[in-house]
Amino acid sequence: MNINQLLQQAPKTLPILDATFGLERESLRMNKENRIAQTPHPKSLGSRNFHPYIQTDYSESQLELITPISPSTREARRVLGAITEVAYRSLEQDEYLWPLSMPPYAKEEDIRIAQLEDVHEYRYRKGLGQRYGKLLQAMSGIHYNMELGSKLVNQLFGISQYDSPLEFTNKLYLKLAQQFLRYRWFLTYLYGASVMAEKGFFKEELHHPVRSLRTSSLGYVNATEVQVSFASLETYVRDIEHHVATGALSAEKEFYSAVRLRGHKHSRDYLTKGIRYLEFRCFDLNPFDFLAISQETLDTVHLFILALLWMDSPENVDETLKAADELNNQIALAHPLNSLPAAADTHTILQAMEAVVSHFQLGDYYQDLIGTVQQQVEQPALTLSGQIVRQIKDQSLHAFGQRQGQNFHNHAWSAPYALKGYEEMELSTQLLMFDAIQKGVNLEILDKDDQFLKLWHKSHVEYVKNGNMTSKDNYVIPLAMANKTVTKKILAAAGFPVPAGSEFSSKAEALRYYGQIEKRAIVVKPKSTNFGLGISIFQEGASLTDYEKALDIAFLEDSQILVEEFIAGTEYRFFVLDGKCEAVLLRVAANVVGDGIHTIRELVELKNQDPLRGRDHRSPLEIINLGDIEKLMLDQQGYTPETILKAGQKAELRGNSNISTGGDSIDVTDQMDEGYKQLAADMATAMGAWVCGVDLIIPDPTLPSSKETPNCTCIELNFNPSMYMHTYCYQGPGQALTPKILAKLFPEIINK
Amino acid sequence: MNINQLLQQAPKTLPILDATFGLERESLRMNKENRIAQTPHPKSLGSRNFHPYIQTDYSESQLELITPISPSTREARRVLGAITEVAYRSLEQDEYLWPLSMPPYAKEEDIRIAQLEDVHEYRYRKGLGQRYGKLLQAMSGIHYNMELGSKLVNQLFGISQYDSPLEFTNKLYLKLAQQFLRYRWFLTYLYGASVMAEKGFFKEELHHPVRSLRTSSLGYVNATEVQVSFASLETYVRDIEHHVATGALSAEKEFYSAVRLRGHKHSRDYLTKGIRYLEFRCFDLNPFDFLAISQETLDTVHLFILALLWMDSPENVDETLKAADELNNQIALAHPLNSLPAAADTHTILQAMEAVVSHFQLGDYYQDLIGTVQQQVEQPALTLSGQIVRQIKDQSLHAFGQRQGQNFHNHAWSAPYALKGYEEMELSTQLLMFDAIQKGVNLEILDKDDQFLKLWHKSHVEYVKNGNMTSKDNYVIPLAMANKTVTKKILAAAGFPVPAGSEFSSKAEALRYYGQIEKRAIVVKPKSTNFGLGISIFQEGASLTDYEKALDIAFLEDSQILVEEFIAGTEYRFFVLDGKCEAVLLRVAANVVGDGIHTIRELVELKNQDPLRGRDHRSPLEIINLGDIEKLMLDQQGYTPETILKAGQKAELRGNSNISTGGDSIDVTDQMDEGYKQLAADMATAMGAWVCGVDLIIPDPTLPSSKETPNCTCIELNFNPSMYMHTYCYQGPGQALTPKILAKLFPEIINK
Repeated sequence: MNINQLLQQAPKTLPILDATFGLERESLRMNKENRIAQTPHPKSLGSRNFHPYIQTDYSESQLELITPISPSTREARRVLGAITEVAYRSLEQDEYLWPLSMPPYAKEEDIRIAQLEDVHEYRYRKGLGQRYGKLLQAMSGIHYNMELGSKLVNQLFGISQYDSPLEFTNKLYLKLAQQFLRYRWFLTYLYGASVMAEKGFFKEELHHPVRSLRTSSLGYVNATEVQVSFASLETYVRDIEHHVATGALSAEKEFYSAVRLRGHKHSRDYLTKGIRYLEFRCFDLNPFDFLAISQETLDTVHLFILALLWMDSPENVDETLKAADELNNQIALAHPLNSLPAAADTHTILQAMEAVVSHFQLGDYYQDLIGTVQQQVEQPALTLSGQIVRQIKDQSLHAFGQRQGQNFHNHAWSAPYALKGYEEMELSTQLLMFDAIQKGVNLEILDKDDQFLKLWHKSHVEYVKNGNMTSKDNYVIPLAMANKTVTKKILAAAGFPVPAGSEFSSKAEALRYYGQIEKRAIVVKPKSTNFGLGISIFQEGASLTDYEKALDIAFLEDSQILVEEFIAGTEYRFFVLDGKCEAVLLRVAANVVGDGIHTIRELVELKNQDPLRGRDHRSPLEIINLGDIEKLMLDQQGYTPETILKAGQKAELRGNSNISTGGDSIDVTDQMDEGYKQLAADMATAMGAWVCGVDLIIPDPTLPSSKETPNCTCIELNFNPSMYMHTYCYQGPGQALTPKILAKLFPEIINK
Repeated sequence: MNINQLLQQAPKTLPILDATFGLERESLRMNKENRIAQTPHPKSLGSRNFHPYIQTDYSESQLELITPISPSTREARRVLGAITEVAYRSLEQDEYLWPLSMPPYAKEEDIRIAQLEDVHEYRYRKGLGQRYGKLLQAMSGIHYNMELGSKLVNQLFGISQYDSPLEFTNKLYLKLAQQFLRYRWFLTYLYGASVMAEKGFFKEELHHPVRSLRTSSLGYVNATEVQVSFASLETYVRDIEHHVATGALSAEKEFYSAVRLRGHKHSRDYLTKGIRYLEFRCFDLNPFDFLAISQETLDTVHLFILALLWMDSPENVDETLKAADELNNQIALAHPLNSLPAAADTHTILQAMEAVVSHFQLGDYYQDLIGTVQQQVEQPALTLSGQIVRQIKDQSLHAFGQRQGQNFHNHAWSAPYALKGYEEMELSTQLLMFDAIQKGVNLEILDKDDQFLKLWHKSHVEYVKNGNMTSKDNYVIPLAMANKTVTKKILAAAGFPVPAGSEFSSKAEALRYYGQIEKRAIVVKPKSTNFGLGISIFQEGASLTDYEKALDIAFLEDSQILVEEFIAGTEYRFFVLDGKCEAVLLRVAANVVGDGIHTIRELVELKNQDPLRGRDHRSPLEIINLGDIEKLMLDQQGYTPETILKAGQKAELRGNSNISTGGDSIDVTDQMDEGYKQLAADMATAMGAWVCGVDLIIPDPTLPSSKETPNCTCIELNFNPSMYMHTYCYQGPGQALTPKILAKLFPEIINK
């Protein structure tokens, strides 16, 4: 039965791009002396016993970043980006990652075997060091895992002559593995990026830069006697088992082929359970890319793989692959600016790639990728190694590596309140995702628009929406907090201070109440809106006419309105988690403070340069506008935008203290009297809330507070309180809250 | 210090009506032989050890219905209505409540002492039977408890000369008690309603009907030696304690005054802790009113009480009250159609009532109440006893009592899917409130518009919104169920059948998907709407043009859309609670079935006569309209509203099976294969939902179902599934679900 020509016969609607991807990227940690870091694996990364995303490879300083299985190359790269950023920001501030596959200048003793708790893993690494040398183990690469999609495989199986899906899948992947080994020289040419070794790495120095030391015979390869036939799955299994039995390999996983069959621990299982996916291991780190592999490379390789399936398999497999291996070695060890040798038949590959794009109508993007490859084939200087070779200074890539490593370090640490690639999500959710990746809690975004995450460790699953809506709160309590009347009744019944007042569903009823509030400071507001709409405040008491007007305004917004006593004082937000107040925030209306030099307009511009200020809630603080509202506000104070304020003189730009209109957030957690914090925590507890934002009006925070003499009034409880605004503040140290949420969700793996 | 003239000096804005009220109403259970029921207290009413609403009074068959403290007479009467309805519907279907204060014809041995678990209570009742006779204990009345509002009392205290709030409050209530005893003959005249005793009740028969046997010296009164002075609180306490010490009273509570000081168990505590409220005990049952006391009576009495405060206290209290007692007895034992004696000074009372209404501007309603009283003063036939006396036939009120009792019985059992007085709330919430009142779970409506209930037993509090949103579900799971994409992902990950499909946020993306669904049955729908808007179904597959149109329609409703495979079959709703499927419902589109006689228009009218059909979700089924949509539907079947269908022939009136557009609900819980029920329950469990509506499409319900071979597809999970629709169905027995919710919320008091 023949697996060839299958794609050619497939309908153009075949979901040819259907596949899943996984990436594993290694990199050495570097210290400020630009040597391999000798510090232990960062504690902030939790335990390597289970961490799904960030592990150590051979040595203690060699990070291995592992993506989960992703439904597209774009998604794989996005999550690799997040993991890479988390890894960077979990290192000591003065450490960075070495961006090249070849290690920096180092001695054998700089390479310390990873301090894993698993004794077998440690022994295995020790054996490898003895067999290959520890320096060789310091080379880093990126592995490209790919599984063909089940829709694609099923449809291909449907048009094939095969009766058994297992046999068909094995044939398919075996063909792919054979073809990959046959044509991998093409990838070596395009993406080889280990062009030289630093002094002392090899006993003898090379005479010229090459394309890829790592994937050449000088790289990390098995002893020559370890030959494995890819002619059939049976010969593959037989040979591997033979080499393990003779001790030529210490374990099956020591077989370092450029392609590895995956899905089971023991090769023999492929015969009965099937190959699940392939791991392509020949990729050097691309030092020009933060993620060490570009989007274009991922997609070009994907197209290359489909082209491998499009083309017919070789007749004499072992013979063909032997020749291919020699060709690859020749190309890998050639000078990067040399042209390809005549034996390298790029035409056939490019033609197959063209055929795939054309047959399945993949469109311009893939067409353009082929165009780029064609240029690279014609101009070696455009290949990756061709670009890197220009960076060699004084027979070293050290300066280049340092520069790039520092650039990537700076990139990772910019906008630390966000998680790059996920900026479209809410900031608090981005922070929580950061924490999950850092601590090794498995993460899946179930719905990005709904900020809906699945987090899990082993069989323990937690869902989180909007950063802190979790299983820890019971359903009805947030519903109670969403209702101001219900909240007030529950708090009042528990003996906490809430504004006195009444609820009305008709104007007539509310008017009859006038006698009760005639000369008092009151607020008239709709019952359920939250955005300040329809609210009237009468600090000196309202005339009947004004009261009636206020009722009309409130009833426009809701069919129920509240008339409450007005409480004078400053509003503070207390963030309570699991019975403890974890943060207190003061929000101050948009303003500038003069320096005797700059105009108000200039002061606003200066204030807006704060990197925390941005737009549309994508930053912890918002850009201050100087629009009509702000100008009116200035006018009322006798200012214009061109006024130069005296040093220390403050100009208010807004009447409301919302962060969203340019207000300042001030973390006062440490200054706030413990009595108020305890009161806020007790209110949340009385309400039955696990997470709760308690808004207290405090007339004088220097007075103490207790339940008996609260000296404050609770005006609102919030069931999904913002977290990021407590963390990245205009003023004050800021309180990290999402790590506390995560630790309480997964106490079994996070200790504090 | 003087408590008189206080009201006269008060500003007109004084919240004079501010008060709370509580009612206690006794009634005998009657059997179908129209004798006192000998059955035990209904089991459905739970335990009398703690029941806050429904107790037994003296005898096992004498129900005592007790309202919680209510902020207005209207609210007190509303809740009494609910408790009364629950009590009626908890009796055996052939039992009813005797509507008169005087018992029906009965012998001593018909009166069985209430079988209470509390030994002291039982002994106390046994003693009373020996002292007063058991028949006398069978008289029933209604007690009117009233506490003046704290705002009112505080403002009165403010304008008083008193320094101590406690002393002031005691003076106020003592004045009220004195005045009440002084003028209670007025209420006896107006509302006396125990006009005669049935044969055998007294040894000697009365010569004529009277106004109120129960409140006369022939009624339930203490021995003549039990005299208690109301001259001061000190004399009151002294006398009561004296009578208990001498054994004239077996306990303080045996003192049967028409007014009782309340708030503490022992009278002496009033001296130090204050009187909290008063209990007025002189009200006979009004047999013309379902609740035994009318709204007008409650408010007239309230006004009367305020008038008592308006008037000056008597000078010689004991003397005055002795004379008043005699006057009351004279009026009570007079013929109902007699005029009041000259000593009865109605003018002073009416004038005071007028003064209160006028001073505090209470308006027309209270003014009209005075008008009614004035007419009753002038025409004795208009008093309650004047009206009842006309109902005497053959020297008995038996026929009248039976008729009224049966009327009230029928009233209580009408519209059993609702709770009268609370029809503005959702049906499922009304059902749950019924259950709570029945089982004696304390109930408070925190927000009627939000269907927000507080339920509690001792210190155990549960909040419930919309009937089944409770603490039993964790917060994030209903949020997951509200999101179709998240639901599908979780169910699919757990191995349950959901429709294949994809989510799109752009039309271009969705169009690219066309190749995958070209010839398949599909549904195109917005991601998050629930009302059938924007949904297109292509059972035969869609052309690209039609697909594009469907995308446009769906994107009009939401920024995200789903393209899913269309599953053919019948949709069933499975109601799952706590891992168990409790009900299965089939909803059938509005239709009529012919009989060979009536036109479709007539068949619709006949079908609409079902008492379960109403409008606006206030009934379990909706009235079928015969509007444009229905006529179009008929037209497509070749019918008009005037068509006469053959017997058994069905005409469809709607394309959708919603109950809200006249659809039929069919309870198929018993018929549905257990496999599907288990599958639905397992889906809810996998989701982590406590309460869950599982919508399954089942192509052939005669096929078995299991997780391996489900033979069905889940198209939606509902986090707040309707309950009433399973309970009161067009067809099938119906499943009561709210009692199961309540039992799971309060397992400590509800066994099943």
